[in-house]
Amino acid sequence: MERLNTNKKKIVNDPVFGFMTIRSGLVFDLMEHPYFQRLRRIKQLGLSNMVYPGANHSRFEHALGAVHLMQSAIDTLELKGADITPEEAEAVMAAILLHDIGHGPFSHTLEHSIVEGIPHEEISLMLMEELNRQFEGRLSTAIRIFRNDYPKKFLHQLVSSQLDMDRLDYLRRDSFYTGVAEGTIGSDRIIKMLNVHNDRLVVEAKGIYSIEQYLLSRRFMYWQVYLHKTVLSAEFLLINTLRRAKELATAGVPVFATPLLSIFLTGKISRTDFTEGQLFDGRPLLGLFAELDDNDILASLKQWQYSDDKILAYLAQSLITRRLFRVRMQEQPFTEAEIAPMLREIERRFAVSPDEARYFLFCDSITNSAYTGGDDTVNILFRDDKVLEISEASDVKIAGLSKVVQKFFICYPKALDIK
Amino acid sequence: MERLNTNKKKIVNDPVFGFMTIRSGLVFDLMEHPYFQRLRRIKQLGLSNMVYPGANHSRFEHALGAVHLMQSAIDTLELKGADITPEEAEAVMAAILLHDIGHGPFSHTLEHSIVEGIPHEEISLMLMEELNRQFEGRLSTAIRIFRNDYPKKFLHQLVSSQLDMDRLDYLRRDSFYTGVAEGTIGSDRIIKMLNVHNDRLVVEAKGIYSIEQYLLSRRFMYWQVYLHKTVLSAEFLLINTLRRAKELATAGVPVFATPLLSIFLTGKISRTDFTEGQLFDGRPLLGLFAELDDNDILASLKQWQYSDDKILAYLAQSLITRRLFRVRMQEQPFTEAEIAPMLREIERRFAVSPDEARYFLFCDSITNSAYTGGDDTVNILFRDDKVLEISEASDVKIAGLSKVVQKFFICYPKALDIK
Amino acid sequence: MERLNTNKKKIVNDPVFGFMTIRSGLVFDLMEHPYFQRLRRIKQLGLSNMVYPGANHSRFEHALGAVHLMQSAIDTLELKGADITPEEAEAVMAAILLHDIGHGPFSHTLEHSIVEGIPHEEISLMLMEELNRQFEGRLSTAIRIFRNDYPKKFLHQLVSSQLDMDRLDYLRRDSFYTGVAEGTIGSDRIIKMLNVHNDRLVVEAKGIYSIEQYLLSRRFMYWQVYLHKTVLSAEFLLINTLRRAKELATAGVPVFATPLLSIFLTGKISRTDFTEGQLFDGRPLLGLFAELDDNDILASLKQWQYSDDKILAYLAQSLITRRLFRVRMQEQPFTEAEIAPMLREIERRFAVSPDEARYFLFCDSITNSAYTGGDDTVNILFRDDKVLEISEASDVKIAGLSKVVQKFFICYPKALDIK
Amino acid sequence: MERLNTNKKKIVNDPVFGFMTIRSGLVFDLMEHPYFQRLRRIKQLGLSNMVYPGANHSRFEHALGAVHLMQSAIDTLELKGADITPEEAEAVMAAILLHDIGHGPFSHTLEHSIVEGIPHEEISLMLMEELNRQFEGRLSTAIRIFRNDYPKKFLHQLVSSQLDMDRLDYLRRDSFYTGVAEGTIGSDRIIKMLNVHNDRLVVEAKGIYSIEQYLLSRRFMYWQVYLHKTVLSAEFLLINTLRRAKELATAGVPVFATPLLSIFLTGKISRTDFTEGQLFDGRPLLGLFAELDDNDILASLKQWQYSDDKILAYLAQSLITRRLFRVRMQEQPFTEAEIAPMLREIERRFAVSPDEARYFLFCDSITNSAYTGGDDTVNILFRDDKVLEISEASDVKIAGLSKVVQKFFICYPKALDIK
Repeated sequence: MERLNTNKKKIVNDPVFGFMTIRSGLVFDLMEHPYFQRLRRIKQLGLSNMVYPGANHSRFEHALGAVHLMQSAIDTLELKGADITPEEAEAVMAAILLHDIGHGPFSHTLEHSIVEGIPHEEISLMLMEELNRQFEGRLSTAIRIFRNDYPKKFLHQLVSSQLDMDRLDYLRRDSFYTGVAEGTIGSDRIIKMLNVHNDRLVVEAKGIYSIEQYLLSRRFMYWQVYLHKTVLSAEFLLINTLRRAKELATAGVPVFATPLLSIFLTGKISRTDFTEGQLFDGRPLLGLFAELDDNDILASLKQWQYSDDKILAYLAQSLITRRLFRVRMQEQPFTEAEIAPMLREIERRFAVSPDEARYFLFCDSITNSAYTGGDDTVNILFRDDKVLEISEASDVKIAGLSKVVQKFFICYPKALDIK
Repeated sequence: MERLNTNKKKIVNDPVFGFMTIRSGLVFDLMEHPYFQRLRRIKQLGLSNMVYPGANHSRFEHALGAVHLMQSAIDTLELKGADITPEEAEAVMAAILLHDIGHGPFSHTLEHSIVEGIPHEEISLMLMEELNRQFEGRLSTAIRIFRNDYPKKFLHQLVSSQLDMDRLDYLRRDSFYTGVAEGTIGSDRIIKMLNVHNDRLVVEAKGIYSIEQYLLSRRFMYWQVYLHKTVLSAEFLLINTLRRAKELATAGVPVFATPLLSIFLTGKISRTDFTEGQLFDGRPLLGLFAELDDNDILASLKQWQYSDDKILAYLAQSLITRRLFRVRMQEQPFTEAEIAPMLREIERRFAVSPDEARYFLFCDSITNSAYTGGDDTVNILFRDDKVLEISEASDVKIAGLSKVVQKFFICYPKALDIK
Repeated sequence: MERLNTNKKKIVNDPVFGFMTIRSGLVFDLMEHPYFQRLRRIKQLGLSNMVYPGANHSRFEHALGAVHLMQSAIDTLELKGADITPEEAEAVMAAILLHDIGHGPFSHTLEHSIVEGIPHEEISLMLMEELNRQFEGRLSTAIRIFRNDYPKKFLHQLVSSQLDMDRLDYLRRDSFYTGVAEGTIGSDRIIKMLNVHNDRLVVEAKGIYSIEQYLLSRRFMYWQVYLHKTVLSAEFLLINTLRRAKELATAGVPVFATPLLSIFLTGKISRTDFTEGQLFDGRPLLGLFAELDDNDILASLKQWQYSDDKILAYLAQSLITRRLFRVRMQEQPFTEAEIAPMLREIERRFAVSPDEARYFLFCDSITNSAYTGGDDTVNILFRDDKVLEISEASDVKIAGLSKVVQKFFICYPKALDIK
Repeated sequence: MERLNTNKKKIVNDPVFGFMTIRSGLVFDLMEHPYFQRLRRIKQLGLSNMVYPGANHSRFEHALGAVHLMQSAIDTLELKGADITPEEAEAVMAAILLHDIGHGPFSHTLEHSIVEGIPHEEISLMLMEELNRQFEGRLSTAIRIFRNDYPKKFLHQLVSSQLDMDRLDYLRRDSFYTGVAEGTIGSDRIIKMLNVHNDRLVVEAKGIYSIEQYLLSRRFMYWQVYLHKTVLSAEFLLINTLRRAKELATAGVPVFATPLLSIFLTGKISRTDFTEGQLFDGRPLLGLFAELDDNDILASLKQWQYSDDKILAYLAQSLITRRLFRVRMQEQPFTEAEIAPMLREIERRFAVSPDEARYFLFCDSITNSAYTGGDDTVNILFRDDKVLEISEASDVKIAGLSKVVQKFFICYPKALDIK
């Protein structure tokens, strides 16, 4: 960080928000911890830079941006009379700083390839607890807020809800770095409209339109960026490449990987390996995970291009040289009648078995909705202290707001199109 | 304009779009005409700067921005094989340049106060015809396009439709100058998605999300800026002030006005005065109108603060010193039972007659919808040449997209609140 | 202003700085005063919008922007231990808010045309003193700071010096609205580097490069915007038009003007008219001046196009229709031998007397330097508490930093070029 | 890239320049080549993200941005009558696309650590020649332009000179991603001012101020970003870490590295290994180099933290966890008397030999100048066809413009400060 002051306040120069001042000493100390420094080496948007070349921003900047917004939210709420002690303010900032600490490299893609059965939130929590030990309990309140075990529920909502500082930062940041300017949300305006009512985070009535704009911009960013079909195609390749490498490795076929990745590639890692502190190479698994980053994946992928296994080599090379697979998308599922001849063609062209052919063809579906009510609703506070859920409060009562749209896609080598 | 080149191409430095190059000689000559130069002295957003202090941009910049986008649209359509001759390209640029030439000062507010019964589009057309005479017929095609009399209907749509270059520019520009960043639309992306199909402007299917985002940003800008309640309050004041001044003037009471405004204030101007070329002070009315601008209104308003007529003085002073009226807004109409006591209170406080009290209280309604289908639809072109209207094509089939929302408001002096 | 909060803090949405929060109640009350509201109707850059169409921003926004930066500067200095009481903080903010309150319309151009012999700073002071009476002494400290009569000298420097908040705001703001992005200065960074040393404002040593960049950007903005030759040409026209109107008016020739401008046009206004409170139309001159704005000038100019006086009509029409005069610029003064034949040609073409010909030709010079040392220096604080002037501290010891560059220019009707 | 059109023109969405259209088919084909795709995995600014967390942009985006500016420059020059054939236009765009193709990971830092005695320009040329073989001679003109062997010398200047498109892009881009807004240069304006005179690239006289602003912004970016002392400290660590790893590897100590890096770490690579096509692991060295990227360095560094060699482990860990060394900077060289006790302290603390202590302490100097005349000058074209070098033409004749400033610095572990 560009540190302009030598005293307690630290300043980080951010392309999105300008100078961001970190006021909390605890937050600053956490930033310097290797667990957090690792986030510099994990891209926020994984493979999206295959489509948007500017999207190389890291989880590190995102977490700092979320802290910056949290400070602003706390200031606003305090001004409106919300009861937040200095300790709670520091805790909620620590919680937002660390909310993504458990993300691995290319997390959304590889969550189930590298570590099975453990969502990243759970790993975040394990790492926070380890940090709490190292920081001698200074993170206890932050952890309770993160787990939603803390009495003041609105603090948890600032960290994790439809309107949390995580989303407010990542939507603005992703919009900025992809160059998709029309995805910009009014994070400043939304924060100024926040209030606390009956221990719940609410938005004041005049912020309704901002919330609508926010929900629909989020939906737009999903279609335009997060679920962009070329991004999906790249992610599918990565998943299948890792899957193949793991299959080979567990079958005893020598597959190069960086030492860190090797551990996760060869051993079948389960939740208990994490929780019971089993040692690998003499080190606990959690600590090893906390060192894994994009470089392990990419350095290994590059080598796999030259693997003796033709499938692994083909997949890795397609990704590294950006010979991405064709994607087709439609509103109905692809039928067996459509898929079967394609698989046979793959078997023929690539001289692979039916099982192996599945590495070259991938069918799945994506879903998107602007707003998923359920437990976690956005609530609007009216002058008469009436509170309505946004889908009730919106004057257009946008039917589509919470409608879930599902699309089906299929990916396969472009060579198949040229018959 | 900042002119960097001495040869035909002219460059204008625009805060929104950067360097804008004007390629057409005709457009450049029109820009230099006094009718167009007048637009420098008319604010695009009228009184919105009462709420958004940065919103001082002029109709002049807006028209140039629309030409800039038009050039980009033509380039895109030509690349996709649309049949546009160089003459048509120049004509459609001239048409967009002049599309707002008939706007008077504070146009949306005063359209019916200054000139009754003639919409600004009609005056635009009269001015374009006058320019056509001066330019010896070089504007004939532009006028046919503007009137929708030209065979290639998509050219008119570029000038006036749900997706015209007028809207694409003003939404981006208004968002920029008000500082309402989340109202930004993806004008670049939308233009790249345009195509022509069966002589109609269409948007390619992958642009659906951009169109949705555009329609909803437009709706957001309406609520946040154009129909902002404080802006409404200021506009109400301006309308009533002009109405009072006109009432006095036509009753023979001496009311100061700039010589230009005097003509429109004292005479009851009708359509035939324009069309039959009646002379005022020895000059045709159209020419006089083409010199009227914000300065006439504001310079007169300032003097009215000191009028002997207490009503005119009160209203003018409220506006000039920004002592705006209170606004209340609700979803139901205000009833006579609510209004009557307020009018009586006004009579008492301001010592005015029941008729005069109406100058101090204003009830009306505003409506807003993201999309008004009807004749002028946004059509989406799918791969199989199928064309669907956006409200059909949108996967959420957003119910609220074309729903018209109506709100009722009442404005009155703040003094009434303190009883 | 867009007011998001109903309690004491007011928020203004600014295109340059985003949401600006006004924390001081005094500042907010001053903002609502008619003297300050007038600044909405005075363009910051006068006629620069003839070259940069986006440059329509007002002195109102500039003053608020300067307050915003002042708040940031105070926060920084307090954090570094500078002794600033809450009263002083409020006073220095009031002082920066009002620093330009005495500017008239097109101030830099018309300072000597409308009111002779009284610089705008002096009028600012008179208005501040009048406000102090109305605010019952709450502005006394602000006035002392403004006059540099206050013991803590660095407070005055924040309001008026080489590094005052006035300049930091207007350079960024003018760069933004003209679209001259490369004129952007690092106002945030500079403010973070400020400190107080021996009661003087200093910049910490690591800010040297920012200061150099700032000084040279300022010089760039001068050449590119403020002294742009087309802007000079327009300003010359305005000066000469006003001069002619005044000459006619004082000679008893009827010349239309708005009632406010009339007073300044017909009477020869001197300092004592202001200070001794002489009444015009029954009102003190200072109060009348405090109502004058761009609309008075432009509304009058428009009418002058139709004056019986051919000279006034020609000049006014040239300006209103943007038929600006040709400008030639060179490094040596224009000689009598160059000028004389041009004047004779003007006499012949326009059928005017030798004296009158001077209205059509204007010779003058402009000067520019990045940095004018003298009393008001920029001082750099090194770690060992050594303080050096920037021209000493800069490692390139930029010779040109304080070099004054002079250029000579001549303006005349373009018709003269076509012989 | 986000590809909006399926026909020849490709569009890339860039956060800096918005939509960039790639018009040349050759350029597009080159973009898809693995040599060029590799640039996605090399950061433009190496370790600068240690100070500016947003500075994660890649050489890939930079090269595309430079092509975008080149297209604009060609359009401008053609409009002004410069003789550029379509083939030359395509060649100069290919040349700028590939100008940095020979950069390795962390290039400025590691140029001499990974490959000794071969500057990156020479490797760029070898790769271009290899591409020319693969593209069957379509790059011949591009190569001649790149080598300055082509008759029209101004084409080479567009690729490599004080005003080349490389610098115009990287200065704007680096300013954007670091958040150092005041480093912004007016690339659009400069390009509009370019012309060709006597086969040399010149800037028209009215562009003088833009050039001055550009040269001084460049200098500012050097001090503020490229030579920022914390960046220097990180780079020193990286150099020394690689040096230690190489020392160990060549001494036969087993040091983990990715297979690609291993080749460059263990073998002493010389120019002839490249030129004579010596095979390593059965593959020519040039091809291996063309696969090396940031991931090889970072993945290896991470492992080195656990090396048995304490020096390597200490250095690698300092970098990966951002425990950067202290930097002191001064205008005079550090003397042996200053350094010797520090080295002894290092020996004592780290229990290393005098030779080994040198890994923990680094002394060097940096130099910076805004403008280095010599052969490669910036020339200004005046109206009378006179051409002057910028340092002559600038009206301030800025003495410091070409003055070379040298600073000396020393880096050492922070632990040494606490005695």
